[in-house]
Amino acid sequence: MTVTDELLANNAAYATHFRGPLPLPPSKHVAVLACMDARLDVYRVLGLNEGEAHVIRNAGGVVTEDEIRSLAISQRLLGTTEIILIHHTDCGMLTFTDDAFKADILADTGVKPAWAAEAFDDIEADVRQSLRRIESSRFITATTSLRGFVFDVATGRLSEVTA
Amino acid sequence: MTVTDELLANNAAYATHFRGPLPLPPSKHVAVLACMDARLDVYRVLGLNEGEAHVIRNAGGVVTEDEIRSLAISQRLLGTTEIILIHHTDCGMLTFTDDAFKADILADTGVKPAWAAEAFDDIEADVRQSLRRIESSRFITATTSLRGFVFDVATGRLSEVTA
Repeated sequence: MTVTDELLANNAAYATHFRGPLPLPPSKHVAVLACMDARLDVYRVLGLNEGEAHVIRNAGGVVTEDEIRSLAISQRLLGTTEIILIHHTDCGMLTFTDDAFKADILADTGVKPAWAAEAFDDIEADVRQSLRRIESSRFITATTSLRGFVFDVATGRLSEVTA
Repeated sequence: MTVTDELLANNAAYATHFRGPLPLPPSKHVAVLACMDARLDVYRVLGLNEGEAHVIRNAGGVVTEDEIRSLAISQRLLGTTEIILIHHTDCGMLTFTDDAFKADILADTGVKPAWAAEAFDDIEADVRQSLRRIESSRFITATTSLRGFVFDVATGRLSEVTA
């Protein structure tokens, strides 16, 4: 039995208490962009209920073309206007460099990825960089609030990153 | 007061009960890739606890270059081996076409995105397409289990998509 099988059994239990469907557009008009880190349960960290906010996540919580795609769809088709960025302490992205990571992949597979790994060595600086990438996108035009935070994996608390 | 301020107040309450830190690598060695849809609370749907699984999310739960980046980091640096893909019923990605979406952006901003919007008209077919994109990546090499599901927003239940 795989972990996937175990999680499917959890889902069967979840479905017995589930009440749906809710409407498609997020009722709080918020999109959250956060790191994929396992310790960051975005709904619990922000007290979100089902149906309230889009949740976009990737390694680092960084902003690449695909996050611009998701945010553009979120704003233009589903009416979100506030954006919350979340990086966190003890992030895996602090533990390597793009060059070393891609050299390892090249050594293992014979192919060097054409994409950036987006490693960083300063959490707050990378939150600011992510804010700047969103601000500078021509495709993200409905934003009424854009703020970035660092989640502390020791305390559970969000700290705002100021410009 | 913005919704963001309201969610920050929720976070202060969350932090009063928080116990951390947990280790960085996901303890269940699982990475979940799901749609950003607000109704899909991945931790609850799968009965996940904090620290157990990476959670990657975007518009549609599709596989683009950035999801390959996140999965490569998840597997190569943080030891995950199982991948769970989740699309869902009543998805926003079923409501438009790439051509129309990009034509609208062009009309509004004067610039047509160089990226694909990744809209789809068949949920199960797009889950299969996402499975194929992961299988065909040279950079995702540690996978021991790769399965795709559709989450029913009416019932809360996951249904597996078979090949």
